[in-house]
Amino acid sequence: ILLTGGHIVNVFTHEILPLNIAIQNGLIAGIGKSYAAGNTVIDVSGQVILPGLIDAHLHIESTLLIPVEFARAVLCHGTTAVVADPHEIANVLGEEGVSFMLSSTSGLPLDFFFTVPSCVPATDMETAGGEIDAATVERLLQHPRVVGLAEVMNYPGVISGDRTLMQKIAAARNAGKMLDGHAPLLSGLELQAYLSCGISTDHECTTVAEALEKTKGGMNIIIRQGSAAKNLAHLLPAVTKANMHSFMLGSDDKEAAALLSDGHMNAILRQAVALGANPVLAIQMATLNPARHYRLWGRGALVPGYRADLVVVDNLTRFNAALVIKDGQIIVRDGKLEVPLKAPAPGLNYLKTINLTRALQPEDFYVIHGPGPVPVIGIISGQITTEKLFIEPLRTADGEIMADPARDLLKLAVVERHRGSGRIGHGLVRGLGLKSGAIASSVAHDAHNIIVAGVEATVMAAAVNALAEIGGGFVVVDKSGKVCAELPLPVAGIMSLETAGVVAERLEMVTAAARTLGALPEQPFLTLSFLALPVIPHLKLTDRGLVDVDAFCFLS
Amino acid sequence: ILLTGGHIVNVFTHEILPLNIAIQNGLIAGIGKSYAAGNTVIDVSGQVILPGLIDAHLHIESTLLIPVEFARAVLCHGTTAVVADPHEIANVLGEEGVSFMLSSTSGLPLDFFFTVPSCVPATDMETAGGEIDAATVERLLQHPRVVGLAEVMNYPGVISGDRTLMQKIAAARNAGKMLDGHAPLLSGLELQAYLSCGISTDHECTTVAEALEKTKGGMNIIIRQGSAAKNLAHLLPAVTKANMHSFMLGSDDKEAAALLSDGHMNAILRQAVALGANPVLAIQMATLNPARHYRLWGRGALVPGYRADLVVVDNLTRFNAALVIKDGQIIVRDGKLEVPLKAPAPGLNYLKTINLTRALQPEDFYVIHGPGPVPVIGIISGQITTEKLFIEPLRTADGEIMADPARDLLKLAVVERHRGSGRIGHGLVRGLGLKSGAIASSVAHDAHNIIVAGVEATVMAAAVNALAEIGGGFVVVDKSGKVCAELPLPVAGIMSLETAGVVAERLEMVTAAARTLGALPEQPFLTLSFLALPVIPHLKLTDRGLVDVDAFCFLS
Repeated sequence: ILLTGGHIVNVFTHEILPLNIAIQNGLIAGIGKSYAAGNTVIDVSGQVILPGLIDAHLHIESTLLIPVEFARAVLCHGTTAVVADPHEIANVLGEEGVSFMLSSTSGLPLDFFFTVPSCVPATDMETAGGEIDAATVERLLQHPRVVGLAEVMNYPGVISGDRTLMQKIAAARNAGKMLDGHAPLLSGLELQAYLSCGISTDHECTTVAEALEKTKGGMNIIIRQGSAAKNLAHLLPAVTKANMHSFMLGSDDKEAAALLSDGHMNAILRQAVALGANPVLAIQMATLNPARHYRLWGRGALVPGYRADLVVVDNLTRFNAALVIKDGQIIVRDGKLEVPLKAPAPGLNYLKTINLTRALQPEDFYVIHGPGPVPVIGIISGQITTEKLFIEPLRTADGEIMADPARDLLKLAVVERHRGSGRIGHGLVRGLGLKSGAIASSVAHDAHNIIVAGVEATVMAAAVNALAEIGGGFVVVDKSGKVCAELPLPVAGIMSLETAGVVAERLEMVTAAARTLGALPEQPFLTLSFLALPVIPHLKLTDRGLVDVDAFCFLS
Repeated sequence: ILLTGGHIVNVFTHEILPLNIAIQNGLIAGIGKSYAAGNTVIDVSGQVILPGLIDAHLHIESTLLIPVEFARAVLCHGTTAVVADPHEIANVLGEEGVSFMLSSTSGLPLDFFFTVPSCVPATDMETAGGEIDAATVERLLQHPRVVGLAEVMNYPGVISGDRTLMQKIAAARNAGKMLDGHAPLLSGLELQAYLSCGISTDHECTTVAEALEKTKGGMNIIIRQGSAAKNLAHLLPAVTKANMHSFMLGSDDKEAAALLSDGHMNAILRQAVALGANPVLAIQMATLNPARHYRLWGRGALVPGYRADLVVVDNLTRFNAALVIKDGQIIVRDGKLEVPLKAPAPGLNYLKTINLTRALQPEDFYVIHGPGPVPVIGIISGQITTEKLFIEPLRTADGEIMADPARDLLKLAVVERHRGSGRIGHGLVRGLGLKSGAIASSVAHDAHNIIVAGVEATVMAAAVNALAEIGGGFVVVDKSGKVCAELPLPVAGIMSLETAGVVAERLEMVTAAARTLGALPEQPFLTLSFLALPVIPHLKLTDRGLVDVDAFCFLS
């Protein structure tokens, strides 16, 4: 293949030169005007040729797409490699979940690299479906597409030298693979203790000072720009020509709808340039730098001998991808996928992960509580941290606690769904806004039990049962117990089998249905999914009960 | 160990800050004023702490020292890691030679990494002792301290797709290891062809333009500053803050005497700063950059979690090393080695490599040639290229060709010394200057046969026999056949068992003795050793005869 007439971005020299590029045997054979013939000659005049884009850090499950559908969505935006942490599916299915991500990405024209989840289960305050112990970490690290240990969120564990965590870290070091960090606001001596075990990235920085302190310690900073957390504007000022090798770009968590409408890494580049970044420097952070950091050799630059992974974009302002070539094969042309993407259909073990043993009854959601105020989870708009409130609830004569939509107090429950234990944690939540009915989700960080919020116990039971029937997902049930809208996520209860377009559309439908019931948050299911995450302050609910995150203990 | 009062160089941020540095379990535990106690506290006030220095490319054999003596010489200068190409010993002993370099460097407090020689033997115009074929390359690449394939000097072979060479290259790529280049003046399409096989370094650049063209192709440039070739002054102007990650420093070939008097990598840093380089940028090229390029993880920077490999120097002008710590152990203090260095004594197979089967006789150096001019190798002062001359020689009545010191024409012979073949190549040389006697050497690139130049055939035979007796080295024999001076190099006939000090002293003695006989070149044995190298234009002599390098064929 010969591309003629385009401008080629050289991330080594930061030049953008009008040169031809010749491709053979999946590799870049040569660059220059002397290369003038090819079996396939494509005129890309007026356009710019970049190395294939690389996402340095994301969770594919957050898109609600299985990998092949994720690939279908992002290849059209020029992404040719990702480094993904399969933390969510690992919480449902353990090693089997990671194996699914590996096997279902083999042979796709997008390089899926993975890190092994380091903190599954996240805590012992909840019941996860899977566990990734040190021996499993060691085993998974052997896979050639596993590039390291995933974000070590348990930084207190690192600092205190937690034995199991140290075994996982040692396994990664012994395998010669990378250790990813997750250390929001960690600083000073604690940061140094964290670094001293060899952790070398962080994607939780929110300020220039934090990023610079971490680069000083040798860390490579992944500037995160996802659907929820957006750090690009705050961190770009930290990047200079002298330290640019210490920065990468990553999406972390991105919704299917945004992938379609906005783009993937090309959207981050577009935003970076709009914020004033040098375009080639931004491109380097989404190509060469992640390739070097994660040792994805032969990727991240357009020079002879490197893989022919490239994207042709309209210009360095919009970054709209027209042509994408992966390993020398034309994958996307005129913005359209040119090749069929095939992945094995998920086996039944991945599709039958809602294990309740019996249909739930309204009685399962009856809660008796002595007199006086009870703990209530207070949603803070736009954040995943919550308030720890104590409010006098509405009670029946015999002491049963009731929802009270007038004061925006809803019943909340987390139903253990992995082991058929029948365990249910109960609480109250304020800020969801439902006036009647219930919403339920089997996406509930990190253990992904079923979380349900509603006004009536009968409807909550109906919602959970409806979820069980479709193998997991999001459902909205009205006060009659009828399902108004649902987004099935049958793969591990957290991913759809549909395309990004269908997922985006159905997510809009369930969101609209929830809003009809009165839901207040912009993304009610996203808000709901974080109410179960007991590592984020201040009050959360798991299947084992209400967790006071500050004290790290159960209430009641 | 706690170092207090020093200024620490941070190669990530290019800061030089007055901070303490704490070391535990061989690693850097933390940096900062908060670290205030240690079992061993060393005050390094007024001094500067750098990461341990790394030589990105050298041939240890060129120092004439065995690795343990090399380590003894360079540790005192702050070198804590080297990437060495054992090309010379491989030409003598093949895989066994490389194994010697690996086994004799195990456990030393200096990290010896090796590349597998790619071009042994260099040509089929000479008889080498060893061969490194593709299967051997593949086998040696498995060793954890082997980081790649050594400089691929046969660039025409790469460009033409030479089958055996491609197998060696594929072996390195499959092993996920680096490919070093050697491509003086290669440019344009030929350079791209060379790069397209994955070769990623070059240490033969001599101009800014050449270096920049190569970095544009993704190459990392090793700026070479050795005893013979010195490229630092010419290449430093190519290095900028934007491309500094593409440059490393290496010594390539350095003499023992220079290591002692001048230093090793610290000498290159001193020269770089004297030439106007930013000191931290220079340091980065001798620490972080080679560590990253050769994947020597955990090395090349002073940050928590990295190996405690460091050197304390007086300042960033002189770079005199006072204290050297390797893997958290104090190795050098007050400039003196503090620990014993131990390596196994070389086995007899390494010490008995001169295989002549019989003592040589004067008749072995008689050459009859028909009438008319004969080819003569013309030495060019200060260069390793030679002139191809045709001169009417002095002849005896029966046609035997004689030396003619009056016209500076000496007899030259290369005696095959590996296989006992008895093969001797004959020629004449101009420019050595001997008035009588002979000098002989078993260091003769690349096959390391015995090369001898002299006036009288009797003395040439005596010189070769004297060399055989000491197992190889350099000898000077006067016209009576008496050995005036010798430098034994019994290890493979190319390395001494003595310290750098003894080697430097004896090299000076043999040089002085050769000069007494009339030798003209500044380093007569270095000049002699290159007269047998048939890959350097224009006329050379091997055991198989005179090689016209331009035509790549034998004259006779």
